Amino acid sequence: MQPRKLTIPLFSLAVALTLVAGALVWSLPTTAQTGREPKAQACDASTAEQEDLYAEQINKNRIGYGLESGNATVPGPTIEMTEGDCLAVTLHNNTNQKLSLHTHGVDYTVASDGTPLNSSCVRGGKSRTYVWQAHSKSIRDDGSIEPGSAGYWHYHDHCRGSEHGTGGVYKGLFGALIVRASDDPVPDVEPCVLVMIGTTFGLKRAPNTPLCEANLGQRAEFVVIAHGDLFHTFHLHGHRWADTRSGSLASASDPSRVIDNKTSGPADSFGFQVIAGERVGPGAWMYHCHVQNHSDLGMSGIFLVRNADGSMPEGAQEALDKFEGHHHSH
Amino acid sequence: MQPRKLTIPLFSLAVALTLVAGALVWSLPTTAQTGREPKAQACDASTAEQEDLYAEQINKNRIGYGLESGNATVPGPTIEMTEGDCLAVTLHNNTNQKLSLHTHGVDYTVASDGTPLNSSCVRGGKSRTYVWQAHSKSIRDDGSIEPGSAGYWHYHDHCRGSEHGTGGVYKGLFGALIVRASDDPVPDVEPCVLVMIGTTFGLKRAPNTPLCEANLGQRAEFVVIAHGDLFHTFHLHGHRWADTRSGSLASASDPSRVIDNKTSGPADSFGFQVIAGERVGPGAWMYHCHVQNHSDLGMSGIFLVRNADGSMPEGAQEALDKFEGHHHSH
Amino acid sequence: MQPRKLTIPLFSLAVALTLVAGALVWSLPTTAQTGREPKAQACDASTAEQEDLYAEQINKNRIGYGLESGNATVPGPTIEMTEGDCLAVTLHNNTNQKLSLHTHGVDYTVASDGTPLNSSCVRGGKSRTYVWQAHSKSIRDDGSIEPGSAGYWHYHDHCRGSEHGTGGVYKGLFGALIVRASDDPVPDVEPCVLVMIGTTFGLKRAPNTPLCEANLGQRAEFVVIAHGDLFHTFHLHGHRWADTRSGSLASASDPSRVIDNKTSGPADSFGFQVIAGERVGPGAWMYHCHVQNHSDLGMSGIFLVRNADGSMPEGAQEALDKFEGHHHSH
Repeated sequence: MQPRKLTIPLFSLAVALTLVAGALVWSLPTTAQTGREPKAQACDASTAEQEDLYAEQINKNRIGYGLESGNATVPGPTIEMTEGDCLAVTLHNNTNQKLSLHTHGVDYTVASDGTPLNSSCVRGGKSRTYVWQAHSKSIRDDGSIEPGSAGYWHYHDHCRGSEHGTGGVYKGLFGALIVRASDDPVPDVEPCVLVMIGTTFGLKRAPNTPLCEANLGQRAEFVVIAHGDLFHTFHLHGHRWADTRSGSLASASDPSRVIDNKTSGPADSFGFQVIAGERVGPGAWMYHCHVQNHSDLGMSGIFLVRNADGSMPEGAQEALDKFEGHHHSH
Repeated sequence: MQPRKLTIPLFSLAVALTLVAGALVWSLPTTAQTGREPKAQACDASTAEQEDLYAEQINKNRIGYGLESGNATVPGPTIEMTEGDCLAVTLHNNTNQKLSLHTHGVDYTVASDGTPLNSSCVRGGKSRTYVWQAHSKSIRDDGSIEPGSAGYWHYHDHCRGSEHGTGGVYKGLFGALIVRASDDPVPDVEPCVLVMIGTTFGLKRAPNTPLCEANLGQRAEFVVIAHGDLFHTFHLHGHRWADTRSGSLASASDPSRVIDNKTSGPADSFGFQVIAGERVGPGAWMYHCHVQNHSDLGMSGIFLVRNADGSMPEGAQEALDKFEGHHHSH
Repeated sequence: MQPRKLTIPLFSLAVALTLVAGALVWSLPTTAQTGREPKAQACDASTAEQEDLYAEQINKNRIGYGLESGNATVPGPTIEMTEGDCLAVTLHNNTNQKLSLHTHGVDYTVASDGTPLNSSCVRGGKSRTYVWQAHSKSIRDDGSIEPGSAGYWHYHDHCRGSEHGTGGVYKGLFGALIVRASDDPVPDVEPCVLVMIGTTFGLKRAPNTPLCEANLGQRAEFVVIAHGDLFHTFHLHGHRWADTRSGSLASASDPSRVIDNKTSGPADSFGFQVIAGERVGPGAWMYHCHVQNHSDLGMSGIFLVRNADGSMPEGAQEALDKFEGHHHSH
């Protein structure tokens, strides 16, 4: 084994700019601990923000998470955190089979892993608290960057039906987790969460897929999650995004890909914000999986961009009516 | 809903450099309109560059687009735009079923969406003009970056056989759209457009797949598009590219992935330029889908890098002859 | 054809910084040759570092590569290079069918392509030397960046069973190739190489998949490769990485995606380093393909993060025992 090299990346922008502009104050904290003795635990549950989540049967074929008992949905409620937050989510399992809460992206110890492997499932009728931490970006002692927790993540069951939660996921036990950096822009409207599973969005086919809405010029936000066994390509008409952490270009020199179609496999997630109708105007814009037989089976929906004053743009009602008439799920 | 935060990204390169070097003039225009009142329409068709496109039956199983009547091909003609261009493409449907022109990446209103949903198909024997705008990058009033239209995009039918154009796409109604920023390098040879659909490139199997060609040292360009229902991995022997918007690294500090194999699902597209034979020399270099049964079924072809003077390199003719002898399509 | 434009990217960081800070010395060499006359050959085999590789039958269903005769493994040995290296690998085919060594990422001429097309297979009982070059990043005469060879690559057979080596790959003829830039950090422990093929990791299912191990705070390295016909999503619990060339963010302003789940198709490869247990603590952390039926079929394993002193963390032995009890391969 070669000795460990403590390295400062040669072309590091931070370093280069520091050289030319000592006056620039970078707000990145350096971690107090060394790389070899990292903070070994996520945050302290006793001082965390508390949240209750209820896992419940919705109907014969659906189980969902909800913020109140009797209010479970598919997908579950969108949970938002900001870097720096510590969140203790108490999951109440109001079903009669074990299930759990496993999350992506944020920090958690094995006790909050939500897996049979780490004995962190919840039996029917019981509760368990899962602790999640969202940390901000920092520079490690060796000069490398520890990414922050900000991202478009998601949570799901990892215990029901199989040790990977296959039975729970296919019943509807999934939802979005959005973690924002303190300086991330926030959208003007509620995030539109689209979960691609089987040949559905959120276990629904057109015309029952989510209607995403914004007025012309509003900052709208999409969170796209894939689950299950199939691969998908998410496509949005008339709008594009950057294939970055935030979905936006970070600067004029950001070379990242700008796309309107993205391959996603099970448990991938991404998100982005668009200015609704920017340069293309209002209307009923399609979103759909671009796998042809998936879209033909009803894996499509509408992003309705209303006029700036909230009124219905010309032709949009006709498009919505046409969409309503396309029944795929029979 | 939280109030909207007008934010200037903390680590924005543009901002940082502006601080240290006020003398630097960034050519990014700021948009005149605010984020809430974006330019609501794509460009003006009456002053646009005009183009005619003909959709025609090629044979019993193929329909293609062509720039002249009687000249349809699969894939259709590669359309090139530069940021700032406005293009009005009049599609003449010389078949007897409705079809359309739907494009990715550029700006268009719902009238140019090319979908049944937005009543923008063309019936057999009729024509319709689709207006596309390619805009350059700018900084929005809130400090965020609006990406430019530059990219390796594509167009296709969205009306024939299904409301998603499945029947048209599988017959051959697709082609590449390249949008360049004004300072993007242009290739020395015609772009090689490779469309992965079914287990074919452009509905053809080896040895009938496209022969991409360049002389040693020339800047060659590949545009790779996926369509249909399957997922693919495009691999090119002896050459690599960056997983960025342009396929190149933007600077010495660009951390982007450098790859020679890329997963692509239906309607994904990407492109890149390589210096033919750079550090590896001339010869018959394979490109192929790296899904083993796809390549074994004939989803492979050749990038022929000739000597710098255009002559055939040693062994290349033998390789071409060998490739010709591999008949997969019977 | 438009004339070739020799262009200096407008927003190039290198250029901008050069303007504001002439004192900064960039270590990028400019290539002596012009874009039109690139160095046409990989490095000189006679002065290269020499390596022997043996392809051998392991059992009835497995063929592997090994550094010594009698020592073949699946995956084959991890080969490491540093940019600037020239490596001559002599492959000894100790089987009775032709096979080869085809590599991704580094430079090689058609003579080292390892394909039937370029007549570079090795018949049973014979040997052949393949020459690979790893070059560092440079700026071409036209101002564009030639990426260096650094990356998480892989090698495999391209001759056995089909002209694409399908028979060899499915028997086990694959391995990782890691190329480091001179200033890339090196891991504290051996890289953990995980090859997703069929519904296995390295042709094995749980509980026989690789056990990746590190102590809390050590810099661990993962190399993930996909092969065969299926698409996968690699997921690691409790840890994340950046979707960049190195798997790390290059600077505080790097906008790249931070992920814990990645779609990979056949011949895709990526890698990353994590600080074991950073902010999450030690324990038995799962890695698995997140395609639900793949994980349920046994496509999962464990990243064991021990305590900083190498001792077993609380609950980890219990988790390992539980994992051992899950027999999928029967």
